[in-house]
Amino acid sequence: MTSLDLTADVVDLTRALVDLPSESGGEAAIADAVQAALAALPHLTVERVGNSVVARTALGRPRRAVIAGHLDTVPAAGNLPSRLADDRVHGLGACDMKGGVAVALRLAATVPDPALDLTYVFYECEEVVGERNGLGRIAAERPGLLEQADLAILMEPSDAGVEAGCQGILSADIVVRGERAHTARAWKGVNAAHKAARVLQRLDDHTPERVVIDGLEYREGLGAVAVRAGVAGNVVPDECVVTVNSRFAPSRSAEEAEAYVRGLFPGYEVWVTEVVPGALPGLEQVGDLVAVLGAEPRPKLGWTDVARFAALGVPALNYGPGDPSLAHTAGEYVPVAQLRECEDRLRKWLL
Amino acid sequence: MTSLDLTADVVDLTRALVDLPSESGGEAAIADAVQAALAALPHLTVERVGNSVVARTALGRPRRAVIAGHLDTVPAAGNLPSRLADDRVHGLGACDMKGGVAVALRLAATVPDPALDLTYVFYECEEVVGERNGLGRIAAERPGLLEQADLAILMEPSDAGVEAGCQGILSADIVVRGERAHTARAWKGVNAAHKAARVLQRLDDHTPERVVIDGLEYREGLGAVAVRAGVAGNVVPDECVVTVNSRFAPSRSAEEAEAYVRGLFPGYEVWVTEVVPGALPGLEQVGDLVAVLGAEPRPKLGWTDVARFAALGVPALNYGPGDPSLAHTAGEYVPVAQLRECEDRLRKWLL
Repeated sequence: MTSLDLTADVVDLTRALVDLPSESGGEAAIADAVQAALAALPHLTVERVGNSVVARTALGRPRRAVIAGHLDTVPAAGNLPSRLADDRVHGLGACDMKGGVAVALRLAATVPDPALDLTYVFYECEEVVGERNGLGRIAAERPGLLEQADLAILMEPSDAGVEAGCQGILSADIVVRGERAHTARAWKGVNAAHKAARVLQRLDDHTPERVVIDGLEYREGLGAVAVRAGVAGNVVPDECVVTVNSRFAPSRSAEEAEAYVRGLFPGYEVWVTEVVPGALPGLEQVGDLVAVLGAEPRPKLGWTDVARFAALGVPALNYGPGDPSLAHTAGEYVPVAQLRECEDRLRKWLL
Repeated sequence: MTSLDLTADVVDLTRALVDLPSESGGEAAIADAVQAALAALPHLTVERVGNSVVARTALGRPRRAVIAGHLDTVPAAGNLPSRLADDRVHGLGACDMKGGVAVALRLAATVPDPALDLTYVFYECEEVVGERNGLGRIAAERPGLLEQADLAILMEPSDAGVEAGCQGILSADIVVRGERAHTARAWKGVNAAHKAARVLQRLDDHTPERVVIDGLEYREGLGAVAVRAGVAGNVVPDECVVTVNSRFAPSRSAEEAEAYVRGLFPGYEVWVTEVVPGALPGLEQVGDLVAVLGAEPRPKLGWTDVARFAALGVPALNYGPGDPSLAHTAGEYVPVAQLRECEDRLRKWLL
């Protein structure tokens, strides 16, 4: 079993984590290493759920914070092993998010007496379908491990800035129907693809809203991500399906988001296939954390696991080293300066 | 080997042909039987090309006509063996087009001294891709067998009416381009599916022309047969392809048909994937044939092998027993009355 030295420099620890491959579904080795390293620390109680690891302090502090990061990565793309160059750690998962995991592990090991109780969560299967998500599994199987938290920090790459809340997601199929006919006698049918022009034009004309919450602007989105029509080369299609994806501000509920999309397409068949609410930024609930972390908070427009904490009633924000636009790229890296900055600022806050 | 009795009644002969299965690619047995039956007739010279059979008279007449029919059928659909009920022959290929083949075989056997020379063509692989078409193969490999023809009768089902000429076909992909982006930041991209609304609306607004030739109205068509866009559920699509199918009057050349479609979509990428010209009705060139066949000629809106004759400079028309809308259906049949009417009228014309 690989042994992780949590007293090592954060750069060395990041590289050690990158060099422990952990594509989604293959996190056993890295979870073993993380579990063993944390179990050696007397101030932490360590639990395992699948290939996720939870470590808690129990110091009787009046407040408790969760610090969480996922252990898995997307598949390798010729970017192993790690290497250090230009003051950056390069390699699979360096940005998303072994740099953030290294920072959290360093804090777990080196801040035995924090000002608030802490729950560290290192979890599996974030990069795959939601049903496999390790954080979701802990919440479902061992909810007590996440209880009594007042706020959560998810160490997703955010360029060492604070990204607060996240937008919700809605997916729907808009089905336009017609009548089949042979194209040699097309006038005997009704071309569903032609009728879909109105749906696509309405999407093109639509101006998404901009919703300001806690001073942060959540810019919504609504658009087609797929169009499918076609029976055969000589048949007038009787169905055209326009799949739309909506990103909605965290102030809207799932029901409101659905009603909004349906309201734009009266008279059409609208089949909502997925709707996941976002997470409010909750900046007023996290106290001095944002001030200590320094940067001006930004709204998170993508969906992240902060929404899982929001669903548990825990305000959460994204804060971690690495440029989020490098996530899932073969050339991903994390700047050494951001690793150090994140570790220093969080340590300052914890003390 | 099955023996065909060409002196039998046309109903019995139709049933015998239906009971000789000949799905496209599997015509060897039926071609053997047809070849043997025709070779026994002293007034015909018989040739074989693949599983197609050509039989010619050489009586020194000033004019020559081709009478052609395909031997193959679509796959069986629980509709074998043949059966006679309600004065109809039921079964695979009864309508498309073993009834027509039976009529032609009866004429070949029973009219040894026609008023014009005749070339009978019974060919393979009409129901599959054009490259395998037996008539096309004969034209390519043994063009002499089709030479010196003044007109052609293709015995495709036409409800015992005359369907003259056929329309051309053009297929094209209209490609609309945009720029990819993550849907969480959709405004950074350009949604190609949204932009395709204009293409689809233009198709919906378009009124195809009606072209009158020799008194027959060819009603053209232009429409989408497929729309494809989509990269992933969270990606703004950068490409939307609208596949259009055009049916154009036989008075337009392939080049004119292509220019017409391109002219409707200036500024768009238009990729023409197939263009096959139609066949002019040529009613003035077929002499008294239409008058003898009796029914008022109709324009053929679908594409048929008459266009292959037109490409050889031979005017051709569709004339055969059976309702063309029953072709390729499990319940296809051919009315006995139409079998007899087609045989009688053609015999009258040949004598």
